[in-house]
Parts: sequence; structure tokens; C-alpha cells
Amino acid sequence: MDRISQAMTSLHPAYDALARRSLQLYRLGHLQHLGGWDQSTYMPDHANEARSAALAELGGLMHGLRTDKGWVEALARAEQEPLSDWQRANWRELNRQWRLANALPADLVERRQLATMRCEHAWRQQRPANDWAGFLPLFRDVVAVAREEAAFLAPILGVSRYEALMDAFEPGMRCVTVDRVFADVRRWLPDLIDRALAYQAHRDAVQPPVPLHGPFAVSDQRALCESVMRSLGFDFAGGRLDVSAHPFCGGVPEDVRMTTRFATDDFLGSLLGTIHETGHGRYEQNLPREWLGQPVAEARSMAVHESQSLSFEMQLARHPAFAGLLAPLVREHLGSQAAFTPQNLHRLMTRVNKGLIRVDADEVTYPAHILLRYGIERALMEGEIEPEDIPALWDDGMVELLGLDTRGNFKDGPMQDVHWPAGLFGYFPSYTLGAMLAAQWFATLGREQPDWPDRLAQGDLTPVFDFLRNRVWTQASRWTTEELIVRGTGEPLNPVYLRQHLERRYLG
Amino acid sequence: MDRISQAMTSLHPAYDALARRSLQLYRLGHLQHLGGWDQSTYMPDHANEARSAALAELGGLMHGLRTDKGWVEALARAEQEPLSDWQRANWRELNRQWRLANALPADLVERRQLATMRCEHAWRQQRPANDWAGFLPLFRDVVAVAREEAAFLAPILGVSRYEALMDAFEPGMRCVTVDRVFADVRRWLPDLIDRALAYQAHRDAVQPPVPLHGPFAVSDQRALCESVMRSLGFDFAGGRLDVSAHPFCGGVPEDVRMTTRFATDDFLGSLLGTIHETGHGRYEQNLPREWLGQPVAEARSMAVHESQSLSFEMQLARHPAFAGLLAPLVREHLGSQAAFTPQNLHRLMTRVNKGLIRVDADEVTYPAHILLRYGIERALMEGEIEPEDIPALWDDGMVELLGLDTRGNFKDGPMQDVHWPAGLFGYFPSYTLGAMLAAQWFATLGREQPDWPDRLAQGDLTPVFDFLRNRVWTQASRWTTEELIVRGTGEPLNPVYLRQHLERRYLG
Repeated sequence: MDRISQAMTSLHPAYDALARRSLQLYRLGHLQHLGGWDQSTYMPDHANEARSAALAELGGLMHGLRTDKGWVEALARAEQEPLSDWQRANWRELNRQWRLANALPADLVERRQLATMRCEHAWRQQRPANDWAGFLPLFRDVVAVAREEAAFLAPILGVSRYEALMDAFEPGMRCVTVDRVFADVRRWLPDLIDRALAYQAHRDAVQPPVPLHGPFAVSDQRALCESVMRSLGFDFAGGRLDVSAHPFCGGVPEDVRMTTRFATDDFLGSLLGTIHETGHGRYEQNLPREWLGQPVAEARSMAVHESQSLSFEMQLARHPAFAGLLAPLVREHLGSQAAFTPQNLHRLMTRVNKGLIRVDADEVTYPAHILLRYGIERALMEGEIEPEDIPALWDDGMVELLGLDTRGNFKDGPMQDVHWPAGLFGYFPSYTLGAMLAAQWFATLGREQPDWPDRLAQGDLTPVFDFLRNRVWTQASRWTTEELIVRGTGEPLNPVYLRQHLERRYLG
Repeated sequence: MDRISQAMTSLHPAYDALARRSLQLYRLGHLQHLGGWDQSTYMPDHANEARSAALAELGGLMHGLRTDKGWVEALARAEQEPLSDWQRANWRELNRQWRLANALPADLVERRQLATMRCEHAWRQQRPANDWAGFLPLFRDVVAVAREEAAFLAPILGVSRYEALMDAFEPGMRCVTVDRVFADVRRWLPDLIDRALAYQAHRDAVQPPVPLHGPFAVSDQRALCESVMRSLGFDFAGGRLDVSAHPFCGGVPEDVRMTTRFATDDFLGSLLGTIHETGHGRYEQNLPREWLGQPVAEARSMAVHESQSLSFEMQLARHPAFAGLLAPLVREHLGSQAAFTPQNLHRLMTRVNKGLIRVDADEVTYPAHILLRYGIERALMEGEIEPEDIPALWDDGMVELLGLDTRGNFKDGPMQDVHWPAGLFGYFPSYTLGAMLAAQWFATLGREQPDWPDRLAQGDLTPVFDFLRNRVWTQASRWTTEELIVRGTGEPLNPVYLRQHLERRYLG
């Protein structure tokens, strides 16, 4: 049957037309991702202007394809066509993507881009200079335009302003859920942190961990990382590991581009970062191939994505049994030293510290950083506070949550993250929602297959990977996030599993 | 003045519209080039299908922009507008590009692509298997569709069929010129080769050159190549050197991506290949920045491009004085050994050998390979011979030109190059036209600045680079190829300079 008669006999011609357009955008997106990856890895400095112009040109063409007026009628007609369950789910996601692409007036998009570019650009100098006063006026412009965006989207989605922004990262997530789970965390976290630190101090007093003795050559570290990635199932025939200033997992499912960065005095940071990105990478590599090019085949949400990277980095790599697998690989690539016993490596990988910087935080203190940001950015977007109120709220929150004094230290305080200068409000919750979800996946796995840690200790990761593949990776965007969680774990998101996980690992 | 009133007051609105469309295509081409570069360097194997689909999708979009019916009227109107000399030249090139993009019927383009893809794909297995019989039927299809293309284009351009194909690589080049210069070469080349070999044998008998003693670590070779590239003026802030199976110079003028390949037993092959690509790279990096995005800013032709790579590889790098600059760099990166004297390195870099393989040929025997291919492919396209006639013609030509017996050896004979299976007829002449032109540039330089070799010996390459920058790089496509040559050297292409160059270097 040739293409024309196939189209003539299709039971869902409008859906088919949408799917073709979606595939076209997916293929063009492949080159967008590559251009961005290269920009962060291999591109020579002076090429940046030409590269940015090229990506903007392609982005403009793609925006034109995404906002083509033909979508409206095709979506309406396709909704009435007889579709399979997957096709129906794909229609839902196509509809959502069309709505997102068309939601905002062009002039608002342009003003948002201008405000965030100016603020983020200045922030790169202002942060190291601790220049809150210089930052504030530019940041006010970003807040103003983000509020405008939120006010525009809220009635369309029928949600609050902050929820309207959060929805871009967590489709369907509402504050009632975030409030429920974050309030729970806030109740037990400060006490858990203190008890974890006390337990750690006690152990250190009995026997301090053996520190690493560097330097560790970059080429050896790289070989170690690739070896661990292989043991974690990363497919190098469809992906790579390279170096960039800020590690990320980019590319497309058929060609996953992970990055890391190396420090010669400490290999664990790079290694654990690589394991984190490997979790993202395996999710991407195992999205359903037969649906690639359609939005239903995309990862479900930022939190679900983070639940995979944290499943790898926290649940798996920091499990005591994993250290037993890791130690011989470390010795193979970096030679032998006293620090390289499984027990000692595990202790080094599970240090708890109250610190000012979110990206350096351990898994015990990390949620505190998110609770703080969530409260502030939500109030900011709902118009309950103004940008100049942030430092005082920040200082109070850091005292309350971590007992740290941050007064006057803007650069390690509210200026530390790129998210706010870049106008990304509503993104922060995903990190801790992802940590909770990772704990919930592994609690389910432990209930269903209690021997998985024993098999891990024997080097058999099959139970873990099969579980994640079946419950998460291959499901892509087939279900809403809440459906995915309930189907995969038997209940909605429940923070008790994060608490149990942290207590078991850090309270001895 | 804002953009709108600027457009309203422009004296050439139609030209401006063409220039904007051209810039758009240039920017999209940036990502095409990057996608191709990555495909040859870093892309994991299994990503090839997705990458090819992505590049085809972008190519299709660009083809749509190139063949937009609006060009016809805009070109006609722009021709009547008051344009500067550069703009007028740009109009000429815009017109040519539009004509090229629209010349062929879509079904012919599709059939050509199908025939060449099938033939080239099969050739990759058939060549190592020396399977001429298997190759022939697929190659017949390629020849048939190329002849069809030639027959279609010839009356449009008012040229012969072979010329119509050659015109894609050498705009304006006609067989009367190629015949003139190639007939000249054919008269003196076989004798010159024999005399060069006799002279070499005589010198070897007196004192054989000292061979290289490897292995040479790839990382050291890479550092040496980059060091030599730097001394040759390559701008690493706007370009890179990487590794690929088949070295090339790709990317865009703002981001030049050169590649090489390394063999651990011989660093000279990789180094000289890198120097060759550096010539291409500097041409690209020094095209007129203010015109980038317009076809007038593109390199003039394949032969002119090759004249730059051969200026670097043959005229410059194999000059006796260059060996004096090279030797300390070689010792710095590869350590000391007896072979690393300037005199010995120069002797190793100027070995002459009669061989079967074009890409391995030295500069003395290389033109013989081109004369052979030109005669065959021209007759093939003009319909004077058939594909099955090629082996006998090849064997006769190799006896006549190089005295080599190739009977039955198809894989090192007419099956050795990718050009024919890929349907690239009319490309081969550019290699030797480029070698001639390189010799002519340097003969002119020697006439105007006779001290350039002395300054080269002192490490001063300014005279060479200034000459090439002024006469070639910054002129881009401002002139036709013939005008460029006459303006830059005082006369049309003249093969006498290649002969004089080879005699001076290889006959002692």
C-alpha cells in the first residue's frame, strides 16, 4: 500500500497529520540539541554569536511550525477520530504542546526574553561581586514580566499564578500537593538533619573516614566514569560522555549527550555527578522507540526525570552494597589506597554537612534549600512579597531550616542560583519532588522484590533496571504524573518514603 | 533610524529581501555543517539513522526556502536596483544559486539520490572485494542518471554535458581551458616523473634518508599538529582540530572544524594532511566577515579552495626553508632522533613514488591520476564510452602515464575513489587546477617579493599570508574565477608555473 492510499484509508487522517508535523519538529529539535551540546562542550569561544544566531533562526522556524493555525482544526478533528489508548494520550500531549506554544502574546515572549537575558548576563558578574543592589533593579524587571506571564496563563489553565508557571515543568502539579508533601518534610527535616550530624560525629569520633589522596589524572577519572556508566547500563552506541563547565544530560533519546567536569583532587564529585546524569540518560535511552517523535514518548516531567537521576545517584550509588561494586573499579582505574575500601568509600559518599550552597548539598540537607526557595518564589509570584523582601526571608529561612547565618552574603544566598535571574519560577520544587519519588520507587521495589540489595551486592542490577524500565522509562508520557505514580507504586506521592530512606541511611 | 523606515528608504528593497533570505539559509546551514561534522567525529554509531533523518528534514526546509517562487520576481527587480559592486557580484551569485537550486525536476533529484546512495553503499563492500562485476550494474544506474542531469543542464547553461556537471564545482570553467592546461601537463609530466625518480635514486645512493622511528603517541602528534597550525595562523578561537576517518575541513567561517587521523608509526602523513586542511581553514576564516551570509562571501570554487590547501601543503610546508621551522617543533613534541634534521625531514616530505592510489600520491605523480580520470569521466558523460569500457581505458592510461600494470586490480584502479559511485562527475579536475593555481600564486609572490623564502627561513610568514589574504581570501566570490586569477597573478591559469615548481624542487 503506498502512502497516498494509506492516508486515504486511515481511520484518523487528522491525527496522522498532527503526528507527521510532530515528527518533523522532533527531527529539527535533534539539531537544536546538538547545537546546544556543542556550545557547552567543543565550540570555540568566538563562534558563540554565529551559533546563537543559527539556533535562533531554527527556533524561529520551529515556532512557526508549532503555531501554524492548521493545528486548531486538526486537533479538533483528531479528538473525534477513533484512536488507540497511546494515540489518545499522544493527542492530550499534542494539545498541551500546542497550547503552550500559543499561550503567550509574541510581545510578552519578547519582553520576557529581553528581561531574563539582561538580568542573567549581569548576574554572572554581580554574583561574584555580591552586588545585590545592582542585581535588584534588573531582577525586578524579570519578576514583573514573570508575574505578567503567570497572570496571563492562570485563567487559561484555571489555576493560581504560581501554579501556572510550575505547570510548565510539572504538568498537572498543584500547590495543594506540593504544600502537603513539603509541610510534612518541614516537620521532620530539621530534627533529622541534627540527628544525622550527631550520628556522624559519633562515628567520626570512633573512627574518622580515610580521606582521598589525589591527584587523580583526568584520563583515569574519565575511564572510571565510563566504566561505571557501562555497569549502570548506559548504551555508548547511542550516547557519549564529555566535559562541560556545568554537567548536564542533553541530546536526544537516540543520541544522549552527557557531560561531567573533573577535579584532580577529588574524583567522587565527578563520579557521582556522572552517575546522576546516567539516570537521566537511561530514562532517555529507554523511552519507547516506536513512539519517538511524538510527545507521548517524552519524559513525563522534571520531577519524574529527577526521580531517575536520584534513583541512580542516591538510592543506588550511595547504597552500601553499591560501594562493594565500586571499590574494585576505583582501584582498577586509580590504583590502590587506604581510602578505597567499600566501607570507607560509602562513608565518604554519605557525608552530611549544613552548607549554604544548594548544588553542593547532600541528600539530607538538600530539601531544606528547596523548601526555602519554594516559599519565597511562590509568594513572589502570587504578589505577596516583593524582590526587596527576599534577603530577610532568606536569612530567616536559613536560620530556621539549617541554623546558618547568611546575613549580607547574597552571593551564597538568594543570588546563588541561575533559576531566578533566568526567570525560571516554579522549577525548584521538582528537585525535591524527584527525591521523594525516587525513594517511593525504591520502597515499592523493596516491597515487591526484597532481595534486590542482595542481588546488587552480587553485581546484579537487573531487578532495579527492570523495575524502572517497566514502571517509568517505557511509560514515558502515557499517563499523567499522578497516574504514573499510582500505577507504579500503588499510591500517590508520599513523603514518608523519603523520611524512611534518610533515617535508615543516616541514623545508623 | 528603526528597521521599518530603513526598509522604506532603502534604494534596493528587492535586493535587501534576497539578502535577508540568504542570511537565513546561511544560519540554518551552520547547523547542517555541525550535524555533518559531528557525524564524522563524535556521533555514536547507532545515532546515524536519527541524525540522517534530522539533516534530511532541515535540508528539505532549506530546499523549500531556496526554491520559493518569490525569488524570480525579487531577482528580476533587484537586477534593476542601484547596487554597489559587491552587491552586484552578490546578485550574480544569488542568481546562480537560485538557478542551481531550481534547475532539476524533483523526480530527477530523487532518482539521482537513490542511485548514488545504493551504488555508494554497495561500493563500500565491493571495493575491498575487488568486485567490479557486482559494482557495474549499480554504477550504470548512476551514470545513466548523471547523464540525464547533464543533458538537462547543458542547454540551460549553453555548455556541453560534462561542462554542465563541472560547472557545479568550478563555476564558469570550460573544457577548452581544462584541455589546454591538461594537454600541456601530459606533454611534460611522464618525463618529469622519470627524471625526478632518477634524481632521487641518485641521491639515495649517495646517502639514503634516515627513516622515522616510531611509535609516536597520538597525544604528542596532536599537540605537534596544533602547534604547527598555530604557527600557520589558524585561529583556534574560531575553529578546532579533531579526528575523523577521512580528514576534512568543515564547519562555517566563524567555526571551522578541521579533522585529521593519526597513525602511530608515521606522524608526517597526519601532519601534512593537517597543514593541507589548515590552508582550507584559513581561507574560510578569512572570508570577508562583513559579507558572511551572502554567497559573494563564499570561497570562489573548488580549485581556488584547493589552491589554498596546496599553497600550505605543497608550496609552503614542503619548501626547504619550512623544514627549518618544523624540525624544532617536531623535536619539542616527539623528542630527538636522527631523522629530525631539517634536511632529512625535507627529504622525507618530498619522496616521489609511482603508485596506484591517488590519495597517497606525491605532488609530482598526482596530476597523472587526474589526467586519467578527466579523460574517462568526460567521455563517459558525453556518451562516447560506456561504464564497461572503463577498465581497459584505465589500464592503458596507467601504463602510458605511470608505467604501471593495473589489469584486474579494480579496487586500486577505477573503483578506488568515492567520487564516481557518489555521482560526482566533473570534480576531479579541480585537484590539479588547484595545484597549478597554487604554483601560480607562489610564482607571483616570488616575482613581487623575492625575499619571501628568506623571511620564511627566519620564521616570518607574513609575506605569504598577506599575499594570500589580499589576493584570495578577502576576495571570496567578488570576481569570477578567471578574473580572480588575472587580477591576482597578471594572467590566466598557466601550467608553466606548476612545471617550473616541480622541476626546481624535484630535479635538483
